[in-house]
Amino acid sequence: MTDSNKTSEKPWGGRFSEPTDAFVERFTASVGFDQRLYHHDITGSIAHATMLAEVGVLTAEEKQQIIDGLEAVKADIEAGEFQWSVSLEDVHMNIEARLTDRIGITGKKLHTGRSRNDQVATDIRLYLRDEIDVIAEELGRLRNGLLDLAEREADTIMPGFTHLQTAQPVTFGHHLLAWYEMLVRDAERLQDCRKRVNVMPLGAAALAGTTYPIDRTITARLLGFDRASENSLDSVSDRDFAIEFCSFAALLMTHLSRFSEELVLWTSSQFDFIDLPDRFCTGSSIMPQKKNPDVPELVRGKTGRVNGHLISLLTLMKSQPLAYNKDNQEDKEPLFDTIDTVKGCLKAYADMVPAITAKVDNMREAAKRGFSTATDLADYLVKKGVPFRDAHEIVGKAVAFGVAEQRDLSEMTLAELQQFSDIITDDVFEVLTLEGSVQARNHLGGTAPDQVRAAVGRARAQLAG
Amino acid sequence: MTDSNKTSEKPWGGRFSEPTDAFVERFTASVGFDQRLYHHDITGSIAHATMLAEVGVLTAEEKQQIIDGLEAVKADIEAGEFQWSVSLEDVHMNIEARLTDRIGITGKKLHTGRSRNDQVATDIRLYLRDEIDVIAEELGRLRNGLLDLAEREADTIMPGFTHLQTAQPVTFGHHLLAWYEMLVRDAERLQDCRKRVNVMPLGAAALAGTTYPIDRTITARLLGFDRASENSLDSVSDRDFAIEFCSFAALLMTHLSRFSEELVLWTSSQFDFIDLPDRFCTGSSIMPQKKNPDVPELVRGKTGRVNGHLISLLTLMKSQPLAYNKDNQEDKEPLFDTIDTVKGCLKAYADMVPAITAKVDNMREAAKRGFSTATDLADYLVKKGVPFRDAHEIVGKAVAFGVAEQRDLSEMTLAELQQFSDIITDDVFEVLTLEGSVQARNHLGGTAPDQVRAAVGRARAQLAG
Amino acid sequence: MTDSNKTSEKPWGGRFSEPTDAFVERFTASVGFDQRLYHHDITGSIAHATMLAEVGVLTAEEKQQIIDGLEAVKADIEAGEFQWSVSLEDVHMNIEARLTDRIGITGKKLHTGRSRNDQVATDIRLYLRDEIDVIAEELGRLRNGLLDLAEREADTIMPGFTHLQTAQPVTFGHHLLAWYEMLVRDAERLQDCRKRVNVMPLGAAALAGTTYPIDRTITARLLGFDRASENSLDSVSDRDFAIEFCSFAALLMTHLSRFSEELVLWTSSQFDFIDLPDRFCTGSSIMPQKKNPDVPELVRGKTGRVNGHLISLLTLMKSQPLAYNKDNQEDKEPLFDTIDTVKGCLKAYADMVPAITAKVDNMREAAKRGFSTATDLADYLVKKGVPFRDAHEIVGKAVAFGVAEQRDLSEMTLAELQQFSDIITDDVFEVLTLEGSVQARNHLGGTAPDQVRAAVGRARAQLAG
Amino acid sequence: MTDSNKTSEKPWGGRFSEPTDAFVERFTASVGFDQRLYHHDITGSIAHATMLAEVGVLTAEEKQQIIDGLEAVKADIEAGEFQWSVSLEDVHMNIEARLTDRIGITGKKLHTGRSRNDQVATDIRLYLRDEIDVIAEELGRLRNGLLDLAEREADTIMPGFTHLQTAQPVTFGHHLLAWYEMLVRDAERLQDCRKRVNVMPLGAAALAGTTYPIDRTITARLLGFDRASENSLDSVSDRDFAIEFCSFAALLMTHLSRFSEELVLWTSSQFDFIDLPDRFCTGSSIMPQKKNPDVPELVRGKTGRVNGHLISLLTLMKSQPLAYNKDNQEDKEPLFDTIDTVKGCLKAYADMVPAITAKVDNMREAAKRGFSTATDLADYLVKKGVPFRDAHEIVGKAVAFGVAEQRDLSEMTLAELQQFSDIITDDVFEVLTLEGSVQARNHLGGTAPDQVRAAVGRARAQLAG
Repeated sequence: MTDSNKTSEKPWGGRFSEPTDAFVERFTASVGFDQRLYHHDITGSIAHATMLAEVGVLTAEEKQQIIDGLEAVKADIEAGEFQWSVSLEDVHMNIEARLTDRIGITGKKLHTGRSRNDQVATDIRLYLRDEIDVIAEELGRLRNGLLDLAEREADTIMPGFTHLQTAQPVTFGHHLLAWYEMLVRDAERLQDCRKRVNVMPLGAAALAGTTYPIDRTITARLLGFDRASENSLDSVSDRDFAIEFCSFAALLMTHLSRFSEELVLWTSSQFDFIDLPDRFCTGSSIMPQKKNPDVPELVRGKTGRVNGHLISLLTLMKSQPLAYNKDNQEDKEPLFDTIDTVKGCLKAYADMVPAITAKVDNMREAAKRGFSTATDLADYLVKKGVPFRDAHEIVGKAVAFGVAEQRDLSEMTLAELQQFSDIITDDVFEVLTLEGSVQARNHLGGTAPDQVRAAVGRARAQLAG
Repeated sequence: MTDSNKTSEKPWGGRFSEPTDAFVERFTASVGFDQRLYHHDITGSIAHATMLAEVGVLTAEEKQQIIDGLEAVKADIEAGEFQWSVSLEDVHMNIEARLTDRIGITGKKLHTGRSRNDQVATDIRLYLRDEIDVIAEELGRLRNGLLDLAEREADTIMPGFTHLQTAQPVTFGHHLLAWYEMLVRDAERLQDCRKRVNVMPLGAAALAGTTYPIDRTITARLLGFDRASENSLDSVSDRDFAIEFCSFAALLMTHLSRFSEELVLWTSSQFDFIDLPDRFCTGSSIMPQKKNPDVPELVRGKTGRVNGHLISLLTLMKSQPLAYNKDNQEDKEPLFDTIDTVKGCLKAYADMVPAITAKVDNMREAAKRGFSTATDLADYLVKKGVPFRDAHEIVGKAVAFGVAEQRDLSEMTLAELQQFSDIITDDVFEVLTLEGSVQARNHLGGTAPDQVRAAVGRARAQLAG
Repeated sequence: MTDSNKTSEKPWGGRFSEPTDAFVERFTASVGFDQRLYHHDITGSIAHATMLAEVGVLTAEEKQQIIDGLEAVKADIEAGEFQWSVSLEDVHMNIEARLTDRIGITGKKLHTGRSRNDQVATDIRLYLRDEIDVIAEELGRLRNGLLDLAEREADTIMPGFTHLQTAQPVTFGHHLLAWYEMLVRDAERLQDCRKRVNVMPLGAAALAGTTYPIDRTITARLLGFDRASENSLDSVSDRDFAIEFCSFAALLMTHLSRFSEELVLWTSSQFDFIDLPDRFCTGSSIMPQKKNPDVPELVRGKTGRVNGHLISLLTLMKSQPLAYNKDNQEDKEPLFDTIDTVKGCLKAYADMVPAITAKVDNMREAAKRGFSTATDLADYLVKKGVPFRDAHEIVGKAVAFGVAEQRDLSEMTLAELQQFSDIITDDVFEVLTLEGSVQARNHLGGTAPDQVRAAVGRARAQLAG
Repeated sequence: MTDSNKTSEKPWGGRFSEPTDAFVERFTASVGFDQRLYHHDITGSIAHATMLAEVGVLTAEEKQQIIDGLEAVKADIEAGEFQWSVSLEDVHMNIEARLTDRIGITGKKLHTGRSRNDQVATDIRLYLRDEIDVIAEELGRLRNGLLDLAEREADTIMPGFTHLQTAQPVTFGHHLLAWYEMLVRDAERLQDCRKRVNVMPLGAAALAGTTYPIDRTITARLLGFDRASENSLDSVSDRDFAIEFCSFAALLMTHLSRFSEELVLWTSSQFDFIDLPDRFCTGSSIMPQKKNPDVPELVRGKTGRVNGHLISLLTLMKSQPLAYNKDNQEDKEPLFDTIDTVKGCLKAYADMVPAITAKVDNMREAAKRGFSTATDLADYLVKKGVPFRDAHEIVGKAVAFGVAEQRDLSEMTLAELQQFSDIITDDVFEVLTLEGSVQARNHLGGTAPDQVRAAVGRARAQLAG
């Protein structure tokens, strides 16, 4: 980059009396990270040239020269034969400079009626739209995996926890569907975000629109945008779509962190509820026995990364006056890394979830501990006429007795139970079984195996639709 | 609260052998802040009792006793005659205890088939749904105010800025519509969020559903929810809706911080573009001449508050295993304060925006400085056949000359301009006027006065619809 | 507050032509939350008046009148007989107005040579300095409790975890000292922060200093500040000390969240390593058997709150031009709530930690599972000449065999072990015991009981010093 | 990387029955970003080997072989002849594998008595310590630049602002020293952080220490650490130092964002207070006249990035149980990027600040507007016996008159001024000059030119010391 200090290479050198400081040039350049937009930059330029020809600003021949030139540049990039230049600042100027090298003076006409401000805003939206579609696909794959697993484990009983204390028996399938529901909302939010991504800023030019007779509906149609944006000042300065995407991502990662926490717990010796295949785990360089749930842990850790990017972007935009400011260049790296993180985590989970094996006996054994059917006993009393709050008190005392004696409710004799309430009769032991407990919660949203199967059915229909 | 240490007062004392530590009782109580849910808690309880009667768990008489009792409790609260008790922990137990005081043993039956876990989840959603509707209204009021002002100022010319440097002339109406567009997206996001708020968790009970023959569709209908939730574990642990609301709020506040920044700039002596009425400003205790734009500054400052609450909630939920954990009690204060902040800021802005006065002459004068029509000169050259990049270079040199001579482009002679390009002829002076410049940007999204008026028209139709 | 709209009541009304909007008055007032500074505001005013008298701006008599008046106002506030007025905006004007009511015209002289800008900056620093000292005390109490518990449990063996998988046996005392070390760093950071809090802004006046012949060293000495600040513009706009305090608090809360996570895990049925007394737990309104570790969960949840406040303040200060701006009013609530949160959490932990009971048998039993002495076997091989990486491989294979056979290393026969390396001889079984394992890690920082006791000794000396 | 799926290449393959999934291998590998630790990893390994030899675990010959081998590996890396392998996971295993390739079986002995857990903790601390020293240097350079500029501009008068409204005249030197003071605190915080960075975790091994007779004081001395850490569990899981560094960085960036905001304001046409040389600015691809303050804008934007990284790390550590978890791998990228960002921004500012040119006439002209000496008039009245609050009211009315008449206080006649108070006499006009105003604030921290020069003197002495 020996010529990086030549003022004249810059697309704006005319007014300047000294070249850019060499460090400043590197410090302010974005080509190191924005080159990943090259494909969408070229797509956008082709549409722009096509529109310029349709409205008569370019001739048909000029348009064709430009398109052929851009396709050739794209081929160079994809063949790894493109030298990115820091002194050309960004992906846009790098591509345009190469285009002009290739096709001469006509290349200089491509930038008519646009600015880098609307150009980059368009590129990011095109890029993000494609990535959203990839993410939606991976999210669908993970959701499907969860449904399959939930159906398979519809009858498997495990302890349900609140406060990480044994609460009531639930079915493993039901537990998995809780994760599924979180992802449904994430998928909805992603589509809501996509609506606002798919609006075209091109035509806003630097900030005020352009004096050329552009037709933005043509460009919007060529690029598959739902519509052209309403206001040029807003168009070049709006980064809502990136922040909204990161908000979606932060919630998705929060959900994955919650799954991860449970997977880590469940693979501990203490819980031992599931097995993760060796291929999703790694070992220790010092402790030969270790098999670590690396994938869930790493995904859990990556939550921080995405929360951080969300804050980066919100901080970035806080108090920025209109219209474009250089600060906005900082929008890309957080967004790109959020996209990469989300895609990686979803792929890892979509691959791993179907390979989870339930240790059914351990789950069942755990569900029997911790007085998990105490609520069932209270409900039993209520059905025999005891007000709920009183029933609660009675069972609380029976549990205190059980804790002292180290016996579960189902292990007490009828006489022992009757110490606490003489309303209790022999039929109490039916409600104290695990199967009885889960089957009794047989309403929309409840944990009964039949409800799990019905919910899987509804979800499949929804996913297919 | 002399009896606050009595174990028996707690709804769960049966199993416990010593009373709660006095400090812990205060530390873990939520009644200090969740009492604002009283109205929605009672509404939810009435619907729950009604459903229990419809499915036969309560008699019609019991139901009526409960409803009458709850209405009486509500009246007490609203009359300021309710003593909130910290030892009763939260709004739910406070109300239920009072109900039982009033109507006796039947009061204890209300909690049949539900838990505080699904009860509080329902209360917050009912509460938030109402607040969303209030916020949507205030947002609409502010949008209307902006449209009126934009229409009034459709022809007013001001400098458009990028990098806070004079860029091109724009119309003040166009600038105001940029703010309007931000609010359109906020309003859309708010409605997208509302869809996910308006789903009923009630019936999830503690975590697994209930053994009573509840009919959740009845309760959902009574409470105006779109539907009952699909999974009980998810229902008691999901706080997505609060986080999504705070994400909406963080973007809205980011937008208000941007308006604020500009209002503060514009009321400075240096810009002096607008006047804010005295009633929206305050003074200094030491400097007698000061008139400070307090409202915009304070709103700008409040952005931090909402970003902070968003992070609070994301951090709160990170890695929480299912289902409900005590951590979740921390969801309320950030959400409540976000609601209050958003409502206050919107009200202040909706009141203030219509009272903004443009200092038209100052704006115009400023637009004339800073070579704001340089782009128009470049476009002029392009239309005469010069490639855009070359035209840019030519004008850059003319500007450098102008900076040295301290004269704007429109103040140069034809001969001087022709130094830089002999293509320039006498007609150049038309494109160098402010009016010529803004009127030439006459396409969808451009700054021309006609476009501003058309955009206002479309916006009014959209708002009305 | 019927007179709230009277322009003349404001300390700055002279220049204004209409009263403040009633909503704006409430929206911009800070007295609702800054009244907690009353004590330090009065202390600061007394010192200011004393200095003004020493330099001759006030007479001795005026000074005494002011001091007596301020003491009387303080007495009123503490007796609950003070009516705070929103129209007087903040704690400062409320107190000064009351002072003037009491002592007449001399009261109006108190504000000579200062502004609310430096006054509030001084008040917050005085207030925070006192709170830091309270927090340091509570932190010391918690540290002492940890040392006592660690000493008591120096010989208790539990599984050490990495990736929540059994890694190596450790002593419970050693584990507790890991928490202790985190708190040592927090305490250091708190004192580092205090140095920067204890610098006096008073004398900066509005922003530029004052024309009165003030002597800031007098006021600094009277108020116990280390020194007066160096620059007036910085003094009224600096909020670093609040942000630094919140950074301290965010790390402290992160540490408490980590303790909390472990306490919650350890009280689960699956781990069952410790008991928390009933007085630190609460129950469930629906599940009679529940005993929930509310305190650790709530503390864990409160981490979010403090992280949020840190972000609030950083966002608040981002890009603020000098000097004071109204935005800064938003500094107080996040700071105050951070202080309250930290104090509450530390008190709860300092009370609870000494009451933790180790379930020694359960810990020991768990340590025996999960091949926790596999590293010891590898080290054994190394000491017999096998390179570490090869020893690791050998033991890995032995563990794989053990997993398949469901037997720990110590449960294999010598012949079985020799399958993997014929270097193994009968002395291997010594290194496979838990006691052998922990005692062998007998160096500074290692888990051996003797090291734990030595570390407690050093820590006690440090705390005392 | 064709062999990336060979189980046996992993340092922990023994216990595993299937190779790592190819995607998981890439997803969990850290070598892509942790390779920047190579230098410090090798330094740490050499010290470790030296210590192992001193305590007799390695022979002198083995030690020398290892050291020579590691030096050769370092030379390879620095010559660009090192192939990093993703299947070797991280920088540590890559280097160790290459070492063993070079020197055979002895290479496998290097890992004796340590784990990657304490190794990476040591590497990061060594690395960060060096970077802190570089940052301290750049910070010093910027501070020096500010002092030079402040001294040069000690007499230059500009308007001081509060609420971005003209408040009182200040000297430009004084304003610059406000920035200087912020940096003093940042430099202090950096050194406070360094104390806690410079503690050695090595010897903690996986989590519990090691069974080899290591001497940690030797290694600590060799590596320049102040001391070895106290607790092995804490040592491998502590990431406080990274968070504390990011807290320092967030405050530093907040300060730079504030300077930046002012530089951007001051280069606008409206303020026009300073000139930035062309070499620190860039232009526009569409608007030929633009000269944008890119460096300040970009630095302002980068504040978000660092706030984000702080949140990433806090979120990462929240609720992590002891000891090391895979989540912790996510600590590096935020830390590395924070370091890079801070270094870049400081360099840019240290280069740019000395090149700032004050437009003295414009500053002075602005200071004359906005009734900047109104406080001086009030003080004048007070000195003649009027209580401050009454003087404030009188001047407020005079200003209201001036606003209406569009005349400054110094432009009124004596008669006009006497309308508001008959105490005013002819000597009033002295206090209404700019010079009179700034010189009158002549106390420690005040804006008087003499105070600025004295403050520069003290600061120079402090920096030198």
